[in-house]
Formats: sequence, C-alpha cells, structure tokens
Amino acid sequence: MHKVVEHGTKSLITSRIKRPSLLSKVITDPNHLIPYFQNGQYIGWSGFAGTNYPKVTPIALADHVEKNSLQSKLKFNLFVGASTGPETEGRWAALDMIERRYPHQSDSSVRKGINTGNIKFADEHLSIYANDLLYGYYTLKKEKGDKRKLDIAIIEATEITEEGYIIPGASVGITPEILQMADKVIIEINTSLPSFKGVHDLVKHDPPPFTKPYQLTRVDDRIGVEAFPIDPEKILAIVESQLPDNTSDPAPEDEKSNAIAHHIVEFFKAEIEAGRMPKNLHPIQSGIGSIANAVIGGLSRGPFENINVWTEVIQDTFLDFFDNGKLNFASATSLRFSPSGFNRLFNNWDNYVNKMVLRNQAISNSAELIRRLGVIALNTPVEFDIYGHINSTCVDGSKMLNGIGGSGEFLRNSKLSIVHAPSTRPTKSDPHGISTVVPFASHIDHSEHDVDIYVTEQGLADVRGLDPIERAKVIIEKCAHPIYKPILKEYLETSTQICLKKGAAHEPHQLDKAFKFYTNLVEKGTMRFDKW
Amino acid sequence: MHKVVEHGTKSLITSRIKRPSLLSKVITDPNHLIPYFQNGQYIGWSGFAGTNYPKVTPIALADHVEKNSLQSKLKFNLFVGASTGPETEGRWAALDMIERRYPHQSDSSVRKGINTGNIKFADEHLSIYANDLLYGYYTLKKEKGDKRKLDIAIIEATEITEEGYIIPGASVGITPEILQMADKVIIEINTSLPSFKGVHDLVKHDPPPFTKPYQLTRVDDRIGVEAFPIDPEKILAIVESQLPDNTSDPAPEDEKSNAIAHHIVEFFKAEIEAGRMPKNLHPIQSGIGSIANAVIGGLSRGPFENINVWTEVIQDTFLDFFDNGKLNFASATSLRFSPSGFNRLFNNWDNYVNKMVLRNQAISNSAELIRRLGVIALNTPVEFDIYGHINSTCVDGSKMLNGIGGSGEFLRNSKLSIVHAPSTRPTKSDPHGISTVVPFASHIDHSEHDVDIYVTEQGLADVRGLDPIERAKVIIEKCAHPIYKPILKEYLETSTQICLKKGAAHEPHQLDKAFKFYTNLVEKGTMRFDKW
Repeated sequence: MHKVVEHGTKSLITSRIKRPSLLSKVITDPNHLIPYFQNGQYIGWSGFAGTNYPKVTPIALADHVEKNSLQSKLKFNLFVGASTGPETEGRWAALDMIERRYPHQSDSSVRKGINTGNIKFADEHLSIYANDLLYGYYTLKKEKGDKRKLDIAIIEATEITEEGYIIPGASVGITPEILQMADKVIIEINTSLPSFKGVHDLVKHDPPPFTKPYQLTRVDDRIGVEAFPIDPEKILAIVESQLPDNTSDPAPEDEKSNAIAHHIVEFFKAEIEAGRMPKNLHPIQSGIGSIANAVIGGLSRGPFENINVWTEVIQDTFLDFFDNGKLNFASATSLRFSPSGFNRLFNNWDNYVNKMVLRNQAISNSAELIRRLGVIALNTPVEFDIYGHINSTCVDGSKMLNGIGGSGEFLRNSKLSIVHAPSTRPTKSDPHGISTVVPFASHIDHSEHDVDIYVTEQGLADVRGLDPIERAKVIIEKCAHPIYKPILKEYLETSTQICLKKGAAHEPHQLDKAFKFYTNLVEKGTMRFDKW
Repeated sequence: MHKVVEHGTKSLITSRIKRPSLLSKVITDPNHLIPYFQNGQYIGWSGFAGTNYPKVTPIALADHVEKNSLQSKLKFNLFVGASTGPETEGRWAALDMIERRYPHQSDSSVRKGINTGNIKFADEHLSIYANDLLYGYYTLKKEKGDKRKLDIAIIEATEITEEGYIIPGASVGITPEILQMADKVIIEINTSLPSFKGVHDLVKHDPPPFTKPYQLTRVDDRIGVEAFPIDPEKILAIVESQLPDNTSDPAPEDEKSNAIAHHIVEFFKAEIEAGRMPKNLHPIQSGIGSIANAVIGGLSRGPFENINVWTEVIQDTFLDFFDNGKLNFASATSLRFSPSGFNRLFNNWDNYVNKMVLRNQAISNSAELIRRLGVIALNTPVEFDIYGHINSTCVDGSKMLNGIGGSGEFLRNSKLSIVHAPSTRPTKSDPHGISTVVPFASHIDHSEHDVDIYVTEQGLADVRGLDPIERAKVIIEKCAHPIYKPILKEYLETSTQICLKKGAAHEPHQLDKAFKFYTNLVEKGTMRFDKW
C-alpha cells in the first residue's frame, strides 16, 4: 500500500525534488510569477479529462485579474491536452482571460465563451493536435517571440527525479510535447498526491523525417521513459500545490444505457462465435458518460476474461473491473477518478499500478497503434444520420459541445468501430423531441466510411459491408425510435424514388428537406412532424 | 535496357513459370473456366488505377453472358483494390453482371449502375478496406461457403517464381490480401509485359492481435518480399494474357491548374524558409488529373531537389520528374502510365526501376506510414465548404463519382494536407454555374479537422490553427470565385449574427438555407443568386 503523504509541511516539496540544484527554483508565493505573464502569450498546460492540470498559478493569475479589473486585458492563447477544471480554465473563461483555447474542453464557462464568439476554439484529433502543436501549426500567428514555441508551460507534477526529469500525476496529455516546445516552464508539485513514479510511459516525438515506429504490440508494452527530461534553464519556478483535481462522481448507469450495453455484449459473443474476434475480445476503448459506464459494467459482468483496455481515460468503473479479475491491463492518457475513486487507488496502490500505464495522448490516440492493436472503439455521438455520418461536436450544426476529442482517431482506426446513444432525447415540450437518427446530420465529424456498428436502446445496426441504402434501412430499423421510424423511412423512400429518376441514387437525399428535423425543432420544439 | 518480350509463341508463358509442377495448371482456352463461376459468388480481382487487372477470364465470362443471354442471371460480388478497365468491369456492368462492387471505380458503366440502383457500391478508405476484407467484414452476408473467404480470385501476374510465388505487374492493390483469403485462384500471366520482378515490396497482413509494426522509415525501405506466396492447391488454372492495360493519356495541364500549382510552390518555399519543412520537402502524395499533373510539373520546374514521393499512383509526369534528376524515389501501389509512358518505362527499364517500388495499398495508404513519413497530401475534391468540410465523392450529395479512394487516409494523416480545385465549374447555362466553395458541403467525406490548406486558381487559404469563423473568412477570401464571394460572405455574416443571439456561434449556420446553392442549381441551372 502506497502511503498518502501528509499535508502542510515545507519538507513535502523538497522531498519530491530529488535534484538538489533545482531546490533553488522553489518559490512559496505564486504571485511572484505574475510579472512573467503578458497579454497575448501562448500558454500550455498539463492536464487531460480534468486531472493533473496546474491550479496554483492559474488561480493566482485569476485572482490578480479579478483584483485589478484586468478582465479582457490579460488574455492568453491556451493549449491543453483536453479538459481541466472549472476553478482554473472555467474561471479564466468567466474572467475573459482566454483568447484562444484548443482542442477540447468540457466546462460550461468555456463553452459559453466559445459559443458567444468570445473564445476562439478549434477542436482537433488529439494525437494529431499534439504533433501539429510541435510542428508549429498552432503558433503560426504568434506576434511576439519564436513562432514555433509556446511562451510558458505550466505543468503539474508529482516528483522531479535525480536527473531533474519530470514525473507527472494522474494524466499525461501533451505534457511531453509542451516540455519540448515551451520557452519557459513553471512546475507545480502536488504534494497532496503520492508520487506517480512508474505509472507513466513518456515518449518524445521526433518530427518527420526522423519519426520512428512505435515499437509497441501489446497494451502493456513500454516504449518510453518513466520521467520526462527538461532543460533546467527553462524552469522559471517550482511551486507547491495541495489542491485536488476537481472531479465529480461518474454518471450512473440507467435503463437505456443498460439496454445498449446488453446489445453490445450479445454482439461481442456472436463475433467471437463467428471467429472474427478472440475470446478475450480486442483491446477496448471506452468513452465517458452513463453509456460508457454501462458498457464497462456489462463487460465486467459478461462471459469475457483477460480483457485489455486501450483508451484515453480510465474511470471509476474500471476499478470494479480490475477487482473482479476480468480486466487484465489498461492503457490510457488519463486517470479520471472521482475523489472516492482516487482514494480507492491510493489505498490499494500496489494492487492497481502494475496493471496500468499512462501515455502521451499522441500515443494513446495514435492511428498507428489503434490499427495495430485492433482496438474496439465505443463512442457516444450527438447524433448520426441514416447513412451513418456522425456528429460528435456541434449541436444543431452550430453550437459546440466539447470537441471531437479522440472519437475520430478511434472510430477511423479501430478494427471494430461502435457508436452508441439513446434513440431520442427530450425537449421542453416533448420527451422524445430530439431524434438521434436524422436524415442528414447537422454537422459531420465522422463519415459513413468510419463506423461499423450503431447502437441505441432500440437495437444494434451492423452495417459492415453494406451500401448506403442498405445501411439506411438497417439503421432506421434497428436504431431509430418508433416515433421517428416512419418519418425516416418516408424520407429514404421518397429520396430514393426522386434520385433514381435522376440517375443519382447512390446516397439518395432531398437537399431541400434534409434539415427539416432541425427547422421543425426550432419552430415547434420537437423534431417530429406529420408531413414531409 | 529491359527487353520487351515477343508475342504469340507458346513458350512465352512457360518461360514465366519457373516452378515446373505448376506448368500442369496452364490452360489455353479460358472458356474452360466458365463452369467454376456461379451466380452470387464473391470474386476478387487484382488491379489498381487501371493497371494489372485480369482481362482474359473476365472477358471470356462477359462473352459467355452475352452469347447465352445471361444478363442479370450471372452476377458477382466484385472486390478490387480500385479501378480496372472498361473492357472488363465496364463491360460486366453493362451486361448486368455486377451485384456489388467495392470500394472504388472510375468507369462510366459501373458509375451508371451504381447511381441507378443496379450495383451495390460502398466506398471505403483503401487501406482499411484491405484489412477489413481480410477480417471478413465484406463477406459477412455470403450465403454459400466460408463467410471469411472470397470464392475466386483472378489476378494478373508477370511471373511465377521457382518457389511458386507470384510476381504481379504494374500494380499491387489488394493482390496479397485476396491471395491470402481466396478459396480458389486463377492466374493470368501477361506475357506482353516484361517480368516486374524486383519492383514490388509485398507484405502479408497478420490481423490483430498479431499485427507488427511496419519497420519502414524511408520511402525506399523494403519490409516485404518481391514475390507473394500462394498455396498451390488453391490455383484453379494459369492462363496466358497478352492484352494491354487500357490506359489513356494523362490530363493536360491548363491555365487554372498551373495557377494552383504556382500557389502551392510559393507556399512550399515559405514553409521551408520558416523552418517547418526540409529543403527537399516531405514525401509527396499526388492524385490523378490535370491539377495533380500541373503540381508535379510545377515541382519539377521548381527550386526543390531530391524530392521523394509516397503516393498511390505513379503517372507519366513522374517520368519527366525522374529524367530531370529532381525526383529521388517514388513509392506507390500502381504504375498507371499511358501506352507511350509504358513504352518509355520498358525502354529505359534499368534507369527507372531502381527508383521506385510498388506496395500493397494497405501499405501505401497506411495511416501509420503516412504519419511517420510526414507526407504532404495533395488531393482534388468535388467541393468544400466555408468551414473546410470536404466532399470527395457524391455530386449534389447523392450521385457517386468514383469513391473516396485514398483521399481520407492521406488528408487525415499527412503532416500537411492540401486540397486543390478550380473555384468554379461550368453548367450548361453558366460558365461559373457551380462554385467549389459552398456554405455547407452536400456530402462530407473529410471534416474540418483533416485539412490544412485549400487552394483554387484564386489563391491559397492556410487555415492551420484557425477557428471555424476565421477559417471561413480566409477560405472565402482566398479561394472563392469573385462571383460567389459576396454571396458566401453574406451567408457567414448573417449566420454569425443569428447564432450569436442564440449563444450557438461556434460554427454558424442557417440550416434552412445551408443547401440553397444546390436547390438554386436544380431550379435555375446555376448556384449563383441575388438574394439569400
């Protein structure tokens, strides 16, 4: 059992800095860092899925802005692996401190900033983003300093080794990449956490033409190092943090998500039976949310043994999965436990840490590795259309939810790509006002070419090998809610008749009516209607 | 110089079969093969981009169908790497012999069959298709025989080695995969061609969990074998062919395509200057058509030396590129030369063959290798929208052109992804009736997350690091034709105002008007109009 360290004594941080020469970088008051920050800078943070993000420095900056009424006057271009916490980026957004924020978030204030035109945001495939950041594609428009560098990186760590190398905490994200490309680095050592030494496998990216194969063929292979090197001259300061990650409890399973999980487990059994999948399945990628949790629950209660996981985020449900002996090993870029989940981890440290590894998101989401390992991808989209095109990001075509995240990398490259969602969602006036299955998705992140299996609580549509019209029939039949089935069928049939006459019936549409579900929703508060 | 073999003597085929025991499989009349073919079978052909496809057997089958009025009674599910020739699959389509045809074609009769609902067709990323075919995803619905096998593969080869291994001709495509999974194989040895021994690098795919890294870090690395093994018991027959590939001359460069090429060459110079690209660029992927040819022409006249190519198809223009000493090495899955181009190759064989290699399309289009090599992708789409979503396949949303091909694999995974197209195309009544830049693409194969650079003869839009609204402004400004600029600007501005009011302005759209370009085209023969 790993001892959880005690709080509040000065010696805590020095015990985590094993390289004596770096002790001189320790500062006790983060306000001393404020002068280094200037309007318009390009800043990188550690953090992914709400863990291991910097807290002390961003909060000190937010306090500074609030105290001195610097709202909209001290703004940053902020680059993080994925989401962090409401007390940091959420507060920055509320204080109008964010000019630009890539490539993923899940905070209500940030989301509001994006959708009101106040925060420039673009979502990008997480692994490609990590590479492109290093190539200088996100810093092209920098007005001051080196166009290929971030001005300051702020990272949370749990230890600095004798070599002066960094050991992150509960996530990796783009920490290795921002350590490579930042001009200056601030390190927050979180002494409320144990050292995560040994949990990570950190890889340096050598841009083309120097990129080498990732020599990884199993989820538990290690191809990197456990601590990431950093040029000591880059280190601006080291500060202590005892602030916890601001995580919440996992979304509970419900009836619909359990029905979805049941369809998926039955499908897996049939695939094994048909010889297309090994008995322990292929490595599983699982998203976040109630359906993802239900699927993991379903798998852990199912007849499968020695399951491996290759995913972005390890969540509370995986602890049960480990405990019942069915989960063999899990690889991810983030541990996103609830506070009680983290306690479970820390109290049984030795029991869990040998069964998992945290990697750069450039590795966890790498097309190369997802393809090679033959991953089974499971993702929850906003909606999908009858031909299988998928919207993962923009509600009603325009409003950003969280960003594409790893959905594209997993859906495109997995051996088996599955999307799952409830068949309807409620509006104010109609408990089934929004259909997940639509004639033409209002935003397309993943095309018909990327997904094999569509699941709702209604059923499972296996579209492998089908042409678009066959696909549409199966998706409507198996996935659409009974309320929307006749409406969708009529669209497909009428579109097919019209397009056949024109000799243009590969993927039949009526572009004058394709978005009627959405216009009806705006006008009448529901997607359902009587007449096309 | 490689001697082109003479025609018409029986000894030609025996000289190409180096394994004596296989000589007993040679048959002289392909009509003897007809009884092996039954309605509903799953058939694989060699061939890619119109070269190295089987001819004698498909033509004998077509003659048989025509002679015996078996149209629509002898139909096949046909799987090829990409396109073949009009005298084979085109004739099969015209004779209603194709039930299903995956994943790419470029023949007018096949296209007509697809768009009139007579041929089931689905396009798929070419490398993923090769894998999924082996996994049994395209043969799931087979009614007879092993659901994980093709019934018969028909391949063109240029030699059988002493070990009994196959040496293909001018393309590889999915030949290795169909040799792995076919129940029976017919081999057509084309003695009108030289043996292509030494030109190929053929890789066997081991499905997960046995897949290994592709140990390739340079375009000229070899990771496979020069001849592909085959179980001799699978060989139904070996027949001689002297029919040439039915290729045409390359599309000529024109004024618009030269303007596009100029923008791209200037951009490359600036990228090198900024230190984001080596002086010899990164390996180039180039499509087919007049713009692709103009770009290759522009590069070969440009200031770049020692260029490498990592692409699908090597075309006539590459011969000039080799000849002027600027092209160092080219890797592809197909040599698609015109008849005169093939003569140039055969007459200077030793000069060219050491500078190129042909690979499985699973390798040429592999995400792993495209990412690792840092490829520069250059593709011509049907259209793209103001936010950067791309239609590569379905005209007006419904009518299949050729299929997605490798466009998705190259655009998603390349270090630098470029699409290029003329800003307008003519309709009957308007020389600028169709705009390439539209408000919302009528079909989306590649999303905003996949492409860095958009080019028309009007200019080049570099959207790296931009958010959707910034991207739209640049794409409209740089790429749209002056006729369409004000129309598109008004759409963007009005949509932004409306969506800002709703707090939904990440990617502003008006879904009731998003497809007006297409409805206007149907009603008035042009996409242009005065009033939104």
